[in-house]
Amino acid sequence: MEAPVFGSTLSCEHDDDSFLAMNSNRCCDNSIEELLESFVAFTESRYMNAGEILVVLIDQYEAKCFNKSPILDKLRDLKTKCDLLYEKVEMGFDDGLESTPMISNKETSSLQCPVSICLTEDDTEDNVVKLGWNITASRSAQNTINPIRRIVDRCKLHPNPQKSLISLSIGDPTTYGNMLPPTEASEAVNEAFAKPTSHGYVPACGMEEARSAVAKLWSRDGFVLDSKDIILTSGCSHALEMCFNCIADPNDNILLPQPGFSLYLTLCLSLNIEPRFYRLIPEKNWEVDLKSMEAAINKKTKAIVVNNPSNPCGAVYSAEHLQKIIDLCEKYRLPIIVDEIYADMVFPGNKFCFMGPLSKNVPILSCGGLAKRYICPGWRVGWIAMYDRNDSFKKFIRPGLLDLSSCILGPNSVIQAALPNILANTPETYFEGIMSQIETNARICYETLSKAPGLKPIMAQGTMYMLIEIDTATFDDVDNDAVFFTKLYNEQSISCLPASVFGAVNFFRVVLTVPTDKAREACERIVQFCINHQKAKDTPAPSIPQSFSKLLEDEGLVNPEESILPFHTKSSKYK
Amino acid sequence: MEAPVFGSTLSCEHDDDSFLAMNSNRCCDNSIEELLESFVAFTESRYMNAGEILVVLIDQYEAKCFNKSPILDKLRDLKTKCDLLYEKVEMGFDDGLESTPMISNKETSSLQCPVSICLTEDDTEDNVVKLGWNITASRSAQNTINPIRRIVDRCKLHPNPQKSLISLSIGDPTTYGNMLPPTEASEAVNEAFAKPTSHGYVPACGMEEARSAVAKLWSRDGFVLDSKDIILTSGCSHALEMCFNCIADPNDNILLPQPGFSLYLTLCLSLNIEPRFYRLIPEKNWEVDLKSMEAAINKKTKAIVVNNPSNPCGAVYSAEHLQKIIDLCEKYRLPIIVDEIYADMVFPGNKFCFMGPLSKNVPILSCGGLAKRYICPGWRVGWIAMYDRNDSFKKFIRPGLLDLSSCILGPNSVIQAALPNILANTPETYFEGIMSQIETNARICYETLSKAPGLKPIMAQGTMYMLIEIDTATFDDVDNDAVFFTKLYNEQSISCLPASVFGAVNFFRVVLTVPTDKAREACERIVQFCINHQKAKDTPAPSIPQSFSKLLEDEGLVNPEESILPFHTKSSKYK
Repeated sequence: MEAPVFGSTLSCEHDDDSFLAMNSNRCCDNSIEELLESFVAFTESRYMNAGEILVVLIDQYEAKCFNKSPILDKLRDLKTKCDLLYEKVEMGFDDGLESTPMISNKETSSLQCPVSICLTEDDTEDNVVKLGWNITASRSAQNTINPIRRIVDRCKLHPNPQKSLISLSIGDPTTYGNMLPPTEASEAVNEAFAKPTSHGYVPACGMEEARSAVAKLWSRDGFVLDSKDIILTSGCSHALEMCFNCIADPNDNILLPQPGFSLYLTLCLSLNIEPRFYRLIPEKNWEVDLKSMEAAINKKTKAIVVNNPSNPCGAVYSAEHLQKIIDLCEKYRLPIIVDEIYADMVFPGNKFCFMGPLSKNVPILSCGGLAKRYICPGWRVGWIAMYDRNDSFKKFIRPGLLDLSSCILGPNSVIQAALPNILANTPETYFEGIMSQIETNARICYETLSKAPGLKPIMAQGTMYMLIEIDTATFDDVDNDAVFFTKLYNEQSISCLPASVFGAVNFFRVVLTVPTDKAREACERIVQFCINHQKAKDTPAPSIPQSFSKLLEDEGLVNPEESILPFHTKSSKYK
Repeated sequence: MEAPVFGSTLSCEHDDDSFLAMNSNRCCDNSIEELLESFVAFTESRYMNAGEILVVLIDQYEAKCFNKSPILDKLRDLKTKCDLLYEKVEMGFDDGLESTPMISNKETSSLQCPVSICLTEDDTEDNVVKLGWNITASRSAQNTINPIRRIVDRCKLHPNPQKSLISLSIGDPTTYGNMLPPTEASEAVNEAFAKPTSHGYVPACGMEEARSAVAKLWSRDGFVLDSKDIILTSGCSHALEMCFNCIADPNDNILLPQPGFSLYLTLCLSLNIEPRFYRLIPEKNWEVDLKSMEAAINKKTKAIVVNNPSNPCGAVYSAEHLQKIIDLCEKYRLPIIVDEIYADMVFPGNKFCFMGPLSKNVPILSCGGLAKRYICPGWRVGWIAMYDRNDSFKKFIRPGLLDLSSCILGPNSVIQAALPNILANTPETYFEGIMSQIETNARICYETLSKAPGLKPIMAQGTMYMLIEIDTATFDDVDNDAVFFTKLYNEQSISCLPASVFGAVNFFRVVLTVPTDKAREACERIVQFCINHQKAKDTPAPSIPQSFSKLLEDEGLVNPEESILPFHTKSSKYK
């Protein structure tokens, strides 16, 4: 027997009723090692990643216990063994987050394992003084991962100083000043601001007049919304967050489109809801692959998210296609959460249909807001519209959403007071002018980029985005969309988004709200970039590129075994 | 053997790895009963409330399966037995929520039990068509309980038509128009609104200039905040929500003041964090009972919430008292979340101290905003300030809060753009004018109500609130603060809040921002009310009143066994 270490209990808790306590109280080094090894066995049997947990344990141990404790060395040894076991692969990019060790997303289930070291009463007053501080964040906070940040922040970006930067990356139509909120909206806000009654609290679900105005705006033949069907939120993101939170418990799942807006994934991970993906078909203007949607449903599925018109695809679904989705949801009794923030933003020849009025039986939560159509994303005005013909939401979802709205309340009271006039007074010509600018840019991008070697744009039908496919085999040294993004930024000073962040590997997304001359110049630079990197025709086939999907896979964001579900899900364990 | 019921699996899942499946597939009535009874035994062994779960089961069963199924009667029978077992006591108030059966908060652990009925593949296409829709809300949504709504909404309120209603109930200083935002703030907002750059997305954590302005405003001798220490949020409620969500996992606990602002409890329940309460001492101007604070700490405690100046008490803590709280937190290595939304709102003779600069080692998250001091609660501008001398928040909490801020983004971009000028230009005289009005009302309330039989006001030191104790023994027919509130409203058309909603049983809270003449009239009516209900001196002692705490206890909001922790907590199971 060697000397005792010190009085402590090293414990790993998993949920409430399963508790692994490795009591190292006054025990010798060897027994610690044995205990730790049994800990690894335990974690593996639970689909946890012992290595990831050990990082946290070491961290907490360093902070909370005396320095130079032999147990630390043991923990570090064990961590090394774990690393070998898991064959940890280095990321190809600079990791800006290196100084912030976090539990990775590789094994989502490991995130369900709050790890703590509890010091027992053996600690004397002296010992307590030596204790350090290291406060761990909740798994919700640690799970709140923005794929855009994860991927883009790791790219080494230095724009070419010879060329002015043109940003086609962020979906903010106000960036270049060519698009501004309607003057009628500005007048309405100014008028509301001048009233002394506009600065106090409003009901958590929103002012009656504002809810009523939204209900009127979104009512269509076949479904008249009432103000009671509307809840105002702090932007459409907040609307989506409330719907996800209300409809699914931790470890339930929600079906998401792939490609899809990255916030859906961020919200699921933050709320510990399993994201499951269904495929959109690029060859069919990004329509839903209904078979993949049906295949993704299981008994823990609580809702299906549909995005129409869609970001990043720019797709606009026909009434017939939407009806097929509704029919599938009816078969499985699944409510729909439809993100209609781009409602009515379609190019001539396309027709936007709200999903709610089409549905006879499937209850639908629709999320929308002012941000995109009224060119004011900073105002943070969103809403939930409840299309619920048969009162399926009456008992739980309606009161649940109302209760959730009381946590942080909705949008700014001044904008709420202005909302009826904003919606009533903005003329149709305003929207036509905006959509005309966007469509012009869409045509320029489509036509110009169609000529670029290795690129295949898919013409948008609406919204303010377009996806362009990259044929990596065409290029010498562009192995994937992240490399394309990085080199395009560094050489041509063009910022777009690698569409891997939306689950569309080897696509990139362009934003179509920039001034037309900038859109044209950006496209020309992209064509030049493609020509510069085009492979010489007699070059032999390249070795298999280290694809971006491999990188995502290493990060745990892609599950190689299930091509339908590219982001890692726990489906194999929970089916 | 009777006829088979139908092909279904009645299942109750608790967490991931424990699964109780009561397979009633093709089984007879008797075996169903046996299975259900074993279910009750199972739930009891898990500290769940079988009766509450059965309500949900019956509900889901009615919705999802065929009508007239014998299993429904069995479930209902069993529910009746459970009710007897739990000796369910009827609430004394009208229950406006009656048509919305929800899992009550009586056993919070029961809320951890998602209950579902899964129909198996035995369901033919025909059966599927007959299925109903009834979509249950997540436990987070069902747990999101606002105590104010719970209690006040159940009172039968009809103001006296002979008297104009005076509202002293909602902490909104703009209600009567006697207090308005500073003109300098209005000018700053108008100026910002006119700029075309104010309408787009801003960084999730807030605009650099706005964060910098808040950092400057809240920096004090001994602690200079940097813009990096500030995260802007959609109101102070959102700031608190983010801090709670970031620092504690489900089933961890956070210590809350009692009495305390009801949102703390709402947020804990919504996030499935156990609320544990420490006592404030009315005799010591609502200082913290440090012994009760220390007693409430256990190994699952992740943070302590301090509210200074405090709602509903109107207390302002001295630097010495705050230091004692900090020392206790240092002993247990607990970070502090301090709600300083009423920062600097103190009456002459009192001094407000930010908690952050006082702390040498304890890391502190401070939540604040414009709402109260700048008289603009509807604007939804809040912030988190991180006082973290030793970088204890660096590894997890800072990145965690930043990630969480990306979910719904912060306040309106126009107000963010205006924030530097709002904070720089509002003159001290504005605040002095506001605080002078509030203090005048505080003195009127204190002096007038001190003369009322059965009332004992505790003079506020700041904020915009005051608590008044009700000696129920003085009155004939005022058994508790909810009855006081109801009768005062119905007879005198005065709206205050029964302070049970804040955990202060048999107190009521008045808001001090109304015009002075209204404050005076309200107090006179309250005195008259007390005289009207005063007991004749020779009346015998009343029977023991059915106190409001009993009602709360029946609702599961009060734990009769632990006087320190008046709201029900799972402490007895988790200690």
